[in-house]
Amino acid sequence: MRIAVVAPSSRFSEEAAERATAIAARTQPGVELHFHPQCFLTHNHFAGTDAARADALVEMANDPAFDAIWFARGGYGSCRFAEAALARLGPAARAKAWLGYSDAGFLLAGLYRAGFARIAHGPMPQDAMREGGEAAVARALAWLASGAPEALEPALEPGRDHAAFNITVLGMLLGTSLEPDLSDHILLLEDVSEHLYATDRALFHLAANPAIQRVAGIRLGRLNDVKPNDPDFGESVETIARHWCERYGIAFLGRADIGHDSANKVVPFGLLGAL
Amino acid sequence: MRIAVVAPSSRFSEEAAERATAIAARTQPGVELHFHPQCFLTHNHFAGTDAARADALVEMANDPAFDAIWFARGGYGSCRFAEAALARLGPAARAKAWLGYSDAGFLLAGLYRAGFARIAHGPMPQDAMREGGEAAVARALAWLASGAPEALEPALEPGRDHAAFNITVLGMLLGTSLEPDLSDHILLLEDVSEHLYATDRALFHLAANPAIQRVAGIRLGRLNDVKPNDPDFGESVETIARHWCERYGIAFLGRADIGHDSANKVVPFGLLGAL
Repeated sequence: MRIAVVAPSSRFSEEAAERATAIAARTQPGVELHFHPQCFLTHNHFAGTDAARADALVEMANDPAFDAIWFARGGYGSCRFAEAALARLGPAARAKAWLGYSDAGFLLAGLYRAGFARIAHGPMPQDAMREGGEAAVARALAWLASGAPEALEPALEPGRDHAAFNITVLGMLLGTSLEPDLSDHILLLEDVSEHLYATDRALFHLAANPAIQRVAGIRLGRLNDVKPNDPDFGESVETIARHWCERYGIAFLGRADIGHDSANKVVPFGLLGAL
Repeated sequence: MRIAVVAPSSRFSEEAAERATAIAARTQPGVELHFHPQCFLTHNHFAGTDAARADALVEMANDPAFDAIWFARGGYGSCRFAEAALARLGPAARAKAWLGYSDAGFLLAGLYRAGFARIAHGPMPQDAMREGGEAAVARALAWLASGAPEALEPALEPGRDHAAFNITVLGMLLGTSLEPDLSDHILLLEDVSEHLYATDRALFHLAANPAIQRVAGIRLGRLNDVKPNDPDFGESVETIARHWCERYGIAFLGRADIGHDSANKVVPFGLLGAL
């Protein structure tokens, strides 16, 4: 199978691409990874201009020679062209698998809203740069290559709808044309590099939105690299999440094995079939 | 006149209260400032527990002996009780003037949505701690005492509706029961201590929301203490704001004289009468 990699957000590196390619060769010899040249462009914060990032994504998505689109990394930037690029996708794009997380959540959200069937929240090529990142990249490739059940977040429930997002990213797309209908979904949430006061505020925003109140429940992934709070926030992130769920009548369904780390498991969006 | 000060958000200090009281004595001798004891409580990040902050606000707001409620400072925390506390306000609260900014925007938003007529975005007692802060506090007191036209943001337009918010705070209340109808309002925005990538993302979120697309236009205040962006973001905050306004068909109406600084002018919410 052939997987196209594009970088819709922050700058990406040749080194990360080489590491991911080596992991693919070792763990999924039947997979050919194609890093679009756009991945290595730089424009300010981003992996190329908005137009270059959008065009590469649309080109690869609409090319029937590829079976999947894998987002190179997160950071920031996909919301700058997501709505316009998604409107340019054709039938070949709809047939593909799509995988990413973090800032790529803007695209996952819009794709899911548009009815794309094979979308998942999970590791990206950039994770090859983490300590222990080989396992994360191999897990992502196993899902892309064969939908491997062992790649999935272990408590996903067959017969239920799921979705997974970065807390900040989901908040920043509420009310926009990228927002998917998450009614009756089990919603898995994670975040990285935020202060706890900001996470508390972001979870207020999510939980106080009627659209999020219609989820079946929330499972809390990891919050990595939490920034120091001055003064100490005095509540754990689980206490914070439980508080907002209780306040707005949302079921808190426990923890989730996702996060900005090498253990990050794959969460396919939508209805999970029998495993 | 009697002004009650309550602290709905972060911890406040006796020193700031003393400075603000001294400025009031010098510049508005007819004003009596009453700092509710809650202002000096501490609970983790906050000026007392959620219940203590809510109860002090409700007590002072519903007391007809006071003419105005002045929020002591921002930081974070008013969204934790805003909806519940505002539901407890009676006629005496509605007759008062209300003043604050930054995190107090959650309360200003909910009050404006509830039809309160005398709400403004402007300096708070904590601004007495800034260099040049005496002018800010005196400006706020002049508006509270007499609606002094010289305290107002100089380009406000008589006969037009206005509102002013911190960018992050406005984003975090969109879709919640605190969100006011800003249709046909001139919306003034400011922020503090954010990375430019986060401000770009927050302005995407605002501009991509149909509710914000109904404003008459946006005026951009100052973004103070912008955190370093790695790599350099490569666009000024005005370029960012113009970009999102243009992208979503919102009129960009220029700059505004508001921000987290001593020059922060007063912006009364709603229809501005003849000056």
